[in-house]
Amino acid sequence: MNHEFNNGQEMYAFARELFPICRSLTGDGVRETLRMIGTHLPGLKIVEVPSGEACFDWNVPPEWNIRDAYVKDAAGRRIIDFKTNNLHVVNYSEPVRTEMSLEELQAHLHSLPDQPNAIPYVTSYYRRTWGFCLTHEERLKLKPGRYEVVIDSTLEPGHLTYGELYLPGTSKREIFLSTYICHPSMANNEVSGPVLTTFLAKRMMSKQNKFSYRIVFVPETIGAIVYISRHLNALKKNVYAGYQVTCVGDDRCYSYLPSRKGGTPADRVATHVLSHHSSDYKRYSFADRGSDERQYCSPGVDLPMGSIMRSKYGEYSEYHTSLDNMDLISPEGFAGSFNVYTKCLELLEKNQTYRAKFLCEPQMGKRGLRPTLGLKNAAQNIRTTSNLLAYADGQNDLIDIANASGISAEELIPIADTLFAAGLLELTSHL
Amino acid sequence: MNHEFNNGQEMYAFARELFPICRSLTGDGVRETLRMIGTHLPGLKIVEVPSGEACFDWNVPPEWNIRDAYVKDAAGRRIIDFKTNNLHVVNYSEPVRTEMSLEELQAHLHSLPDQPNAIPYVTSYYRRTWGFCLTHEERLKLKPGRYEVVIDSTLEPGHLTYGELYLPGTSKREIFLSTYICHPSMANNEVSGPVLTTFLAKRMMSKQNKFSYRIVFVPETIGAIVYISRHLNALKKNVYAGYQVTCVGDDRCYSYLPSRKGGTPADRVATHVLSHHSSDYKRYSFADRGSDERQYCSPGVDLPMGSIMRSKYGEYSEYHTSLDNMDLISPEGFAGSFNVYTKCLELLEKNQTYRAKFLCEPQMGKRGLRPTLGLKNAAQNIRTTSNLLAYADGQNDLIDIANASGISAEELIPIADTLFAAGLLELTSHL
Amino acid sequence: MNHEFNNGQEMYAFARELFPICRSLTGDGVRETLRMIGTHLPGLKIVEVPSGEACFDWNVPPEWNIRDAYVKDAAGRRIIDFKTNNLHVVNYSEPVRTEMSLEELQAHLHSLPDQPNAIPYVTSYYRRTWGFCLTHEERLKLKPGRYEVVIDSTLEPGHLTYGELYLPGTSKREIFLSTYICHPSMANNEVSGPVLTTFLAKRMMSKQNKFSYRIVFVPETIGAIVYISRHLNALKKNVYAGYQVTCVGDDRCYSYLPSRKGGTPADRVATHVLSHHSSDYKRYSFADRGSDERQYCSPGVDLPMGSIMRSKYGEYSEYHTSLDNMDLISPEGFAGSFNVYTKCLELLEKNQTYRAKFLCEPQMGKRGLRPTLGLKNAAQNIRTTSNLLAYADGQNDLIDIANASGISAEELIPIADTLFAAGLLELTSHL
Repeated sequence: MNHEFNNGQEMYAFARELFPICRSLTGDGVRETLRMIGTHLPGLKIVEVPSGEACFDWNVPPEWNIRDAYVKDAAGRRIIDFKTNNLHVVNYSEPVRTEMSLEELQAHLHSLPDQPNAIPYVTSYYRRTWGFCLTHEERLKLKPGRYEVVIDSTLEPGHLTYGELYLPGTSKREIFLSTYICHPSMANNEVSGPVLTTFLAKRMMSKQNKFSYRIVFVPETIGAIVYISRHLNALKKNVYAGYQVTCVGDDRCYSYLPSRKGGTPADRVATHVLSHHSSDYKRYSFADRGSDERQYCSPGVDLPMGSIMRSKYGEYSEYHTSLDNMDLISPEGFAGSFNVYTKCLELLEKNQTYRAKFLCEPQMGKRGLRPTLGLKNAAQNIRTTSNLLAYADGQNDLIDIANASGISAEELIPIADTLFAAGLLELTSHL
Repeated sequence: MNHEFNNGQEMYAFARELFPICRSLTGDGVRETLRMIGTHLPGLKIVEVPSGEACFDWNVPPEWNIRDAYVKDAAGRRIIDFKTNNLHVVNYSEPVRTEMSLEELQAHLHSLPDQPNAIPYVTSYYRRTWGFCLTHEERLKLKPGRYEVVIDSTLEPGHLTYGELYLPGTSKREIFLSTYICHPSMANNEVSGPVLTTFLAKRMMSKQNKFSYRIVFVPETIGAIVYISRHLNALKKNVYAGYQVTCVGDDRCYSYLPSRKGGTPADRVATHVLSHHSSDYKRYSFADRGSDERQYCSPGVDLPMGSIMRSKYGEYSEYHTSLDNMDLISPEGFAGSFNVYTKCLELLEKNQTYRAKFLCEPQMGKRGLRPTLGLKNAAQNIRTTSNLLAYADGQNDLIDIANASGISAEELIPIADTLFAAGLLELTSHL
Repeated sequence: MNHEFNNGQEMYAFARELFPICRSLTGDGVRETLRMIGTHLPGLKIVEVPSGEACFDWNVPPEWNIRDAYVKDAAGRRIIDFKTNNLHVVNYSEPVRTEMSLEELQAHLHSLPDQPNAIPYVTSYYRRTWGFCLTHEERLKLKPGRYEVVIDSTLEPGHLTYGELYLPGTSKREIFLSTYICHPSMANNEVSGPVLTTFLAKRMMSKQNKFSYRIVFVPETIGAIVYISRHLNALKKNVYAGYQVTCVGDDRCYSYLPSRKGGTPADRVATHVLSHHSSDYKRYSFADRGSDERQYCSPGVDLPMGSIMRSKYGEYSEYHTSLDNMDLISPEGFAGSFNVYTKCLELLEKNQTYRAKFLCEPQMGKRGLRPTLGLKNAAQNIRTTSNLLAYADGQNDLIDIANASGISAEELIPIADTLFAAGLLELTSHL
């Protein structure tokens, strides 16, 4: 683990920068977010897709931008103000500038009686309408009267914007990371994903990798569908493993959502790493999916991807409200997620299949391998070395051998490197 | 569920009609039973197989008929009387008309010391003998003296009789139902089987089915062996799934006995339906078998059949005694069995394998599918619809998808029909 | 079970004869041990392999012999004396004859502070050195002063010696038993292995077997490697199942260590027999291996072998010390191990795959098979017979059928023989 890169504080600080931006499926909030990510990832390519472009069963929607929005009472006070929290406006609201009674206004208000101090997050991407969101406490204070209602937005043909980074490795086979950039000011279920992905990408950029890395920052659902529709054959041909990165900023638990059939390299690596890192991590089923694995793992697309998360979307009370804010996530949460994802990427890089080159056990003593390998617990190390040789039958990979030995594959990697260098193992996996 | 057909009262009434008849492997009791079933099932074909006909390792036995049987004491009173309960005579008793001491008589009497108020059911199909059965209480009352013993039976070359109904469907692949009609007056372990089978057949006759249905009413063991020996190739070629219908009249539990290897469509459907209908149903092993699955699932015959039961033969104390009477079974017991069997047959009919026609998720909103599908719990319904599309990879059938989603396949059927009609799914299973 | 051969007392007496000999990887202790085994097994072939012979990654080491060894104090008393216990000398010690201070001597002493009354067993096969082992209690009594140190050993080119017995059977396929003969005076983890193996061999010699038996007595590790390197192709071609016989003399538990992948006939038979003989037997993983299965099951050798043990090496406190002595093992321990191994070998001989010759159930009555088979519990026996016929589909072997029936395969063997003789079963397995 290179500690230089695992700086929870730095990630948290970057999250704080991204948090205030009013993102949506399209528009300048997405562009500004990608620009800021690009300051960390110089090679990031920004792609603009015109409204109306067909992608499978869908079309790219019109572009939405917003400058201001408020509701003023008869006294002229802004009693709901987009500028104090961008969740106050229903995302994709069409422009409006009018006056109405409280009764009329109520039909356009959204609040949560069960969470009276939370502003809900509401969208209306595919039906033109407008609305405001506020805490239920504030809503109950509204008095009958006339209200001025303004949403200074545009909803017109434009573009959908996404970002893409490609890091070539020794092999053309790819590790694919996807995260989304389409929610306004929310922390765990928005900024944590692009922030962690940015820092993972920085780490991979800093070294030579076996795999190539394809890393995309897309608006959820329609962005993933656009990306797949433009790159389907290449993705199906090249992607060896991938993860949907979301909800990685809080520090309450780890969780894993597997691919539809399970058992892909992404699934095997993630469940192995998590079971050793945090044995009580929460195991979800693909039936619990809810982010872009819905597209990436759909029948006929079938990318071998899972999703490593902390508190999963939909499973924590602050989800999709103003309570999913910077207090919910932490430097420690980021550091833990970075650590787990990095272990997974390292294990994907190093999880080879080996075959012992000698029949029967080799004579370790004459090669001086016992002292060379001697660590704190020499007996345990000798046992681990012996197990690696005994299970290296050309079919077991390091995860298989680690599981058979009851240890973490991470511990086997340096031993495998030593035995390979000593001519006692040969590689049987090829990428 | 068509309630018109699920009339527990009607089934119980029909059972009451069949109960008094003295059935055996062969003879007029079988014929009368089949005649009464035929009043419900006009297409029922009655088949007569001559005594002596070879079938695999067996031969059809001589035909047995009985008019009267009794034991009279010295005072001329009928102290054991076939006319009060046909269980009093050992089934297949040869004719006898003689007089003897109590001591001699005892060698021909059967009773149950552990169940002193029950008349046991005893047969001697393949060894010529005669005997009487009585409660142990009555037996203890017998006093020394001379007894007149009369069994007015015939045991001569004749025929074995069975009934068969064939309902052609869209496909030549068949669902096979078998039940037996060879026990005298017993309720759960005799009349419940042909009664339920009759009412299931009536229901299938009333509609167009995908599968063809082959429904047989045979004497147990030898009847099944005869039927198999005459139709082996057709059965092996056509039967897609089947059930042995027995012990379906009481209301104490549900149980399932699988095919030898398990995993056939009959097994998958029955265990799925039962686990949702009555999650504590009793799971037996094929090693616990005891009815005609012994023949249908024997090596080389290997029909894909199981047996859905209520209280299984051999597992309840009244089994094979006069206590297995009309009080043991109930309209509720029949209605429950009818319900479960009907769910299984419906699921066999509808358990298709589908593939999603669009890559990535389709846009449900523009098709108006969300409101169209809106039921009481719209969110759950959207999730179920989404799961169906996400798992419809051309390999998972509705049971697989239901299991992955943690719901009953029954719930998926109307949704699959809607999605298929909307052009979002295509069928990949063919029959 | 032939009680004539299961004489725990006889085995214990033979163990007592072998116990005092000072064995090592090579030398006259091995030869004397093999000579004594040969008195029981007239066909035993003794093989001498010259020092330096290459075998895979190894070479046969020089031959070690020892006549005497001691440490004398200034008063001329033998305070450490090889003649009282051969564990006192580090195995493979080079010759030495000198005098030194206690401080110098300490560098050559080995004791166990945690087991102060045990002499440890120490070897230095592949690094020339010398040393003495003693109890920690004795070591603490040593006083400063001059000590005379003598090891009257030779370590020179010579031979490695092993024994081999081949018992031809009807088939050329072999059951392979291997045990080791290279430790000085230890009981469970040394003499129990060759003693039990000798008595198993005597039993197999006394009758005609289906399988051929190959039984080897080799020094651990290097002896197994030598044997494999000389017979690799024949072993891979002929061995159907095998066991590494070690730690079979105590009476504390049973345990099983499977082959690397498991599921070989040796594994299936051993786990079936043990689960019925001693259902709480300890299940080890191949990762816990430590004896010659390390070579026999190594990648590319892959013999289908496991190891049935009582208290496994490394898992009991007396292991590799002078406490692993004749008090630790017992006639009862030997008798139990002999019983289990014999059941396994019998089951290997008899675990055929059968197919029922008649479609549907055969008519048992006309063959008089019900009474013929009648044992104490006739109903259970009829059920067992019926299950055997019902599962005899040409693919299930007796273990499969026993597992499906919830009984021991041992019970099925005589029934299978009867049914085969009656023409109701045919064999589908061929060896």
